[in-house]
Amino acid sequence: MIEDKVLDALRKVQDPELGKSLVELGMVHDLQVEGEVVHFTLALTTLACPLKDRIMDDARQAVLALDGTRDVQIELREMTAEEKERIWPKKGQQKREPGVAQHLNDVKRVLAVMSGKGGVGKSSVAAMLAVALRRQGQQVGVLDADITGPSIPKMFGLSETPPMGPVGILPAETKTGIRVMSINLLLPSEDEAVIWRGPLIGGAIKQFWGDVVWGDLDVLVVDLPPGTSDASLTVMQSIPLNGVVLVTSPQDLAGMVVRKAAKMAWQMKVAIVGLVENMSHLICPKCGERIEVFGPSQAVHTANLLGVPLLGQLPLDPELARRCDAGEIEDYTTDVFEPITTKIADRASAKPSTPIF
Amino acid sequence: MIEDKVLDALRKVQDPELGKSLVELGMVHDLQVEGEVVHFTLALTTLACPLKDRIMDDARQAVLALDGTRDVQIELREMTAEEKERIWPKKGQQKREPGVAQHLNDVKRVLAVMSGKGGVGKSSVAAMLAVALRRQGQQVGVLDADITGPSIPKMFGLSETPPMGPVGILPAETKTGIRVMSINLLLPSEDEAVIWRGPLIGGAIKQFWGDVVWGDLDVLVVDLPPGTSDASLTVMQSIPLNGVVLVTSPQDLAGMVVRKAAKMAWQMKVAIVGLVENMSHLICPKCGERIEVFGPSQAVHTANLLGVPLLGQLPLDPELARRCDAGEIEDYTTDVFEPITTKIADRASAKPSTPIF
Repeated sequence: MIEDKVLDALRKVQDPELGKSLVELGMVHDLQVEGEVVHFTLALTTLACPLKDRIMDDARQAVLALDGTRDVQIELREMTAEEKERIWPKKGQQKREPGVAQHLNDVKRVLAVMSGKGGVGKSSVAAMLAVALRRQGQQVGVLDADITGPSIPKMFGLSETPPMGPVGILPAETKTGIRVMSINLLLPSEDEAVIWRGPLIGGAIKQFWGDVVWGDLDVLVVDLPPGTSDASLTVMQSIPLNGVVLVTSPQDLAGMVVRKAAKMAWQMKVAIVGLVENMSHLICPKCGERIEVFGPSQAVHTANLLGVPLLGQLPLDPELARRCDAGEIEDYTTDVFEPITTKIADRASAKPSTPIF
Repeated sequence: MIEDKVLDALRKVQDPELGKSLVELGMVHDLQVEGEVVHFTLALTTLACPLKDRIMDDARQAVLALDGTRDVQIELREMTAEEKERIWPKKGQQKREPGVAQHLNDVKRVLAVMSGKGGVGKSSVAAMLAVALRRQGQQVGVLDADITGPSIPKMFGLSETPPMGPVGILPAETKTGIRVMSINLLLPSEDEAVIWRGPLIGGAIKQFWGDVVWGDLDVLVVDLPPGTSDASLTVMQSIPLNGVVLVTSPQDLAGMVVRKAAKMAWQMKVAIVGLVENMSHLICPKCGERIEVFGPSQAVHTANLLGVPLLGQLPLDPELARRCDAGEIEDYTTDVFEPITTKIADRASAKPSTPIF
């Protein structure tokens, strides 16, 4: 039946804010097909929805793509209280409450990238992991939990303030479709300082989990800041992590701080997926010499000490630094990251750690 | 007079805990010289002083070094309440109270090394600055304010737990005589995790300032952790800083986060001494090629943006990484750091910023 075909087409159109299809959300009503003209009513959560036009356009295009449709007529109305209740679990939810978006999100796995030590390339490993998973066709998000030194948006070339809808904040979307949330997207300028004590840092991270409309994700990658204080604690306590990927550099000094991070993960009962050594060496672009910039690798030693698998070693690559600065991390290709991604995907526990509160 | 010579000799002997000479502290009493034998009484703050034997030995050696002395007889007694009151401002101080050591310390200048960004080499710049000032003959201390990722003790090869006296914690001392305090000296093992929220972090830093017996210092270098949250806030609010030295790396990504740190310093009304670019390039040890590992330098641009002087650029040097890992930062020599030290010493404001509380 042509009506079924129209519904199937609309099943592919998502409400960008809620991250689910219009049909699944119960938004499509009174569908009628008269010859080549399709009529239906779209029930929106609010007629003040800033994304109203985009949703209508998407729906119209999807239906027009079907054979034998020439015109689409859409009427808009606001959902009734009962209809809204099906979307939000609390009755008569008119005002946005913290954590509302969380009930609508369906995040299959959450992986945190952690180091303890700063500057070993946590963020670039987190970004490369997201890019690699996205290339495999997965729905991927990146939650930047580094509130005082966020670098994820710059790497992806994102700077626009994400819109705020009635349900929550919409994540920014990269050109390959990775959903991103970071404090830097919400600041008036990217170099604005966030001079916050711990409780505010923790509050922001909880909001990034509970108030952001992630929608359906196969994997959410959480980029942790250095240290084992508030940000890391809040992530481990408030977000159901399937595991952490530890990042280190060859320096023994870095290894020491990474071991602190590993001990924190153990104490918080979060599974460690494995260890990635970044900046392991540099190939001289002129003579091909293999230079151990930060000394000989300690990765095998550190991995053995911790009893976790060594997932791989990444060289220092000036091209990566250039791509990150240019916001083109999605255009960066390297052979060495694919096997690391595979190992992470294979090893990431299917069962999340239970958050404490 | 021989008694004056003895007193002069004892003036060179310090109570290691109080960081001042025995004479200045009013510890030497009842001095008598009979022929070649010197008698005196040492009044200690407590007879339970763990450093009693060391103080007596130091005093004995100093006097025996004088011509015409063959023997030294020292009697010990505990100071009276009145005598103690001269050392501690609060009357009848029997129990250690927070901040007691602070009244005894005389720290002429405090310089913080900050970046906002992790892994750009704050700690190695802080350590190299301390070493360079010490080589000039200054009394130097290093306060490691990175509570969750401390790297200063490892760089100096320090691992012994510092003793705790009635007045406060004695800093560790490096082989060239730099006084060091770091949380890692107080942990059961160097890779123990410190999983603390902000208030504990802030408390530890305040103790490192107020409860550590720094004694007389020309310069105290404070090594800040990454970020603009609790640790940096507490340092800027509780310690009278004469200025901050900003450290960046060539990546624009680092520059962005360093600009956040600079904005924090402005907001907290702390003077910025200038900017040091670390890891600016690497010379290939085989062919001599100058490799811009983290991309072309942004230092001039960042310094201009901030309106602060560029103090210098440091290359990536595998030898520095090796020395840091081996605890031999004091044996590392580089021509490029001397002019930076001179500029910092010249530019560091003589007047400290007023702490807010």
